[in-house]
Amino acid sequence: MRRKSFRDMQCPIARGLDRVGEWWSILILRDAFRGSRRFDEFQDSLGIAPTILTKRLNALVEAGLLSRQRYSDHPPRDEYVLTERGHDFRPVLLAMLAFGNRHFPPDRQSVRIVNTATGEAVDPVLVDPKTGMPVAGPGYAVETTPLKSRA
Amino acid sequence: MRRKSFRDMQCPIARGLDRVGEWWSILILRDAFRGSRRFDEFQDSLGIAPTILTKRLNALVEAGLLSRQRYSDHPPRDEYVLTERGHDFRPVLLAMLAFGNRHFPPDRQSVRIVNTATGEAVDPVLVDPKTGMPVAGPGYAVETTPLKSRA
Repeated sequence: MRRKSFRDMQCPIARGLDRVGEWWSILILRDAFRGSRRFDEFQDSLGIAPTILTKRLNALVEAGLLSRQRYSDHPPRDEYVLTERGHDFRPVLLAMLAFGNRHFPPDRQSVRIVNTATGEAVDPVLVDPKTGMPVAGPGYAVETTPLKSRA
Repeated sequence: MRRKSFRDMQCPIARGLDRVGEWWSILILRDAFRGSRRFDEFQDSLGIAPTILTKRLNALVEAGLLSRQRYSDHPPRDEYVLTERGHDFRPVLLAMLAFGNRHFPPDRQSVRIVNTATGEAVDPVLVDPKTGMPVAGPGYAVETTPLKSRA
């Protein structure tokens, strides 16, 4: 059963969620960032039913976050590659990673963002690039303004 | 039907998603940041079935992102207030907001992060607080290390 669509909502969070798909889609994108490209790689990593994986991959292609690239003609096989829009989802994943690490850390492995030059773990902060101040802190707010009707 | 749980996965993204709940939960948290506290406020904003809203609120309380606070004894009524952990989810929402605005902007209103002192719109960046460099860019990677077994 399809959940209610968030697409018509006038909130960019809801609209982004609608296009990304659902929970599985986020983990598919995560795997794509880790280098997975082929159906079997996603399936092995996620333990997801093939029918669901097919749907989620198709939705991510339709939403423009992945693109399909043929890598074999006999038999016909495609792989799934992050588009520019898909790459732009990376900060969302990394913000989720930081939140998960702070509050629900895994117990059998550590998954950290590291500075590859120093090897140091990083707890990232979402900032205003002009001021360097955290946008989740004081001095920043979310502002909603109606746009002129098209009618 | 409950989807497969991500809780046992050894990835902080999956674990965070599991605890947060699902798509609705993210919009409930968004509304909580906008100032909603009462059942009716969430329901009016989201147009969500009461049974689903109750489940999602309970899950967010159980996961420690919201806390229940009694505001009326006759009749008994609770409101839902963001905990410190709940507040810590804000960067995830704001990263989603930025992604949604860039790729799937609403057509009838604009929803922007603004610097309240200058009124300027902000397109936030997730950075390493030590270097100020974007962690989604070069020089940063996600590193997975097994932890010592408890056995």
